[in-house]
Amino acid sequence: MAEVPVEIIDWARRERPAPLAGITAAVAVGAQLSAVRYTLDADAPVPEHSHPNEEFGQILRGSLELRVAGRTRVLRAGEAFLVPGGVPHAARALDEGCELLECYAPPRDPLPPATPSGGSS
Amino acid sequence: MAEVPVEIIDWARRERPAPLAGITAAVAVGAQLSAVRYTLDADAPVPEHSHPNEEFGQILRGSLELRVAGRTRVLRAGEAFLVPGGVPHAARALDEGCELLECYAPPRDPLPPATPSGGSS
Repeated sequence: MAEVPVEIIDWARRERPAPLAGITAAVAVGAQLSAVRYTLDADAPVPEHSHPNEEFGQILRGSLELRVAGRTRVLRAGEAFLVPGGVPHAARALDEGCELLECYAPPRDPLPPATPSGGSS
Repeated sequence: MAEVPVEIIDWARRERPAPLAGITAAVAVGAQLSAVRYTLDADAPVPEHSHPNEEFGQILRGSLELRVAGRTRVLRAGEAFLVPGGVPHAARALDEGCELLECYAPPRDPLPPATPSGGSS
């Protein structure tokens, strides 16, 4: 069968622990952008960091405290944000945890390379 | 107060009718990517079209029939897809309608320019 030029993404099948405690991430990487679905346990913190990639975030479930340039805002399910490249930002999930979709351009994979394990294809 | 370099997005305040019947769209445009939240009525069709921008889509609610290269798939809430730039694609909301988040890179605003109306700022 000819290959169809569209990637269908089932996040659950891509989920891996993130380098940060209490956070898992599932990644899809394209040519111009990448997308990541994060699941944060209650109170899971994301320390301040920055990257040259522009970052769009959409809260899918729960709520997230977002800190940029010393100002903290609480974002709830349905709200979204846009952080320009190079701007330091930090975050923390609130009591109910948070499911967060982010897109980066240019593409960014926030996870370390998966370790190949024998037997899986 | 100094301007904080993050854009907080309340989609409901940005919603406008799209050029296609039965569809509204709310747009956020960045420097490297743009994001659009579409709301499609039940059975609302998106005719086949293409654009050079890579397109990521996340089904937020309901379900969407996506057609690429002659193959049709039904995507449900929680699923996502990635269409490379330049690939023709079409879609249709199913019976319950669909709320769909898309990100484009480079940025793409799928709406005609807003008509300035007196009195709003």
